[in-house]
Amino acid sequence: MKIEKLILDMYDVGMIKFGEFTLKSGKQSYVYADIRTAISYPEIFVNLCDLIYSKMSGLNYDSICGVPYSALTFASGIAYAHKIPMLLKRKEAKGYGTKKILEGNYQSGDTCLIIEDVVTTGMSIGETTEVLEAEGIQIKDIVCFINRNQGGKETLEAQGYKLHSITDLYLVLDILYRHGKITADDKAKAEALIGV
Amino acid sequence: MKIEKLILDMYDVGMIKFGEFTLKSGKQSYVYADIRTAISYPEIFVNLCDLIYSKMSGLNYDSICGVPYSALTFASGIAYAHKIPMLLKRKEAKGYGTKKILEGNYQSGDTCLIIEDVVTTGMSIGETTEVLEAEGIQIKDIVCFINRNQGGKETLEAQGYKLHSITDLYLVLDILYRHGKITADDKAKAEALIGV
Repeated sequence: MKIEKLILDMYDVGMIKFGEFTLKSGKQSYVYADIRTAISYPEIFVNLCDLIYSKMSGLNYDSICGVPYSALTFASGIAYAHKIPMLLKRKEAKGYGTKKILEGNYQSGDTCLIIEDVVTTGMSIGETTEVLEAEGIQIKDIVCFINRNQGGKETLEAQGYKLHSITDLYLVLDILYRHGKITADDKAKAEALIGV
Repeated sequence: MKIEKLILDMYDVGMIKFGEFTLKSGKQSYVYADIRTAISYPEIFVNLCDLIYSKMSGLNYDSICGVPYSALTFASGIAYAHKIPMLLKRKEAKGYGTKKILEGNYQSGDTCLIIEDVVTTGMSIGETTEVLEAEGIQIKDIVCFINRNQGGKETLEAQGYKLHSITDLYLVLDILYRHGKITADDKAKAEALIGV
C-alpha cells in the first residue's frame, strides 16, 4: 500500500509523465519517471528513502553510495536517518585540492551498497561501479527504486551485482491504470515500448 | 559543548589538518578543514546537519539548497529529518534530458536558504547563488559550518546575503589548543595566515 500511495503522489505532482521520451540509454519510451524533483516534495522524498532503506534489510555493506544526483540525495537521507557511512561519487573530478572523484573514507576490500533511482539498461550505474572498484571497493548489491525492465537486472547480474528494486514499470503502470490516472491506451503504449 | 565535541571528533578522524595548504581561493593556509569526509562518520555527519539546522531557526525560506558536494549531503539529511523542500544545484549541466543545472520544483519569487560547509572569501558560493537568482529565486540567508574569517561574511553581506556560521576558524583553533591537540606554535602559524 505504501508503494501504491507513493506512485500516486508522484503522478499527482508530475513526476511520472506520459508522452514521447528518449531515455539516456537511447531507448524510446512512452512513460518517464522524473525522480529528480522528489527533493521538492518532503513526503515523497522521505517515503522514497524509507522504501529504499527497507530493501537494504539483510544485505551486508560497510557503506552506501548513491549514483549522482537523485540517489545521492536519497543516500544522504538514509545515512542521516540510520547512521550509515556513505561514499560520494562526483559527476566530475574537481579542478583543485585533492582531486578525488570519490569522497569519503574507505579501505580496499570494503563492501559498498549502491543506490540508484531508475535502472533501465544498467549501463549508467557503470560510471559509479567503475570508480569504486578501481579503489578496491567491492560491490555486491544495488538497490533501485524503479526497475524499468529493460535488461538492466540481467546486465547487472552478468557483471556480478544483485539488483533489488522497489517496483518495476509494469507495476507503476498497473497502479496508475487501476486508479484511473491513465487510460488503457496509455498503459498499452507504455508497455509496448518496455520490451523494445 | 556540542560544537567542542564535534571539532575534537573531526580532528581525531583527520578532518582538520595542519600543514601548508593552498585554498580554492588561492590563499595560503596552515589549517585545512576537509568537511567532505564527514559522510564517512555518521555521528559527525548527523551532528553537522543538526547544528546547521539549529542555525536555521527563525529564518524564513521556502526551500534549502546545499552548495555541492559536501553541503548537498547536509541539505539532504536536513531535508529528510525536517521535511523541508530542497533544490539541487548541479556542479555541471547534464548532457541529456531536460538539461537543467537546477533540479527541483520552484517558482520565481521563492526564497531559498543556502547551506555551505566552509566560507573563505565567499566567492565560491557565487556559483550557486547566480544559478538560483537567474531563476528568480531570492536568497537572504546562508548558513555555513565554518567561517574562515577571510572576508567572506563582508563580501556576502555586500551582496545582500546574511551569513550565519556555526563556528569560525579562531574558535576551532582555540578548542584544539585548549584540548592539547595542537601546539601554541601551530595555533600561531594558522592564525597568522587568517588575516592575509
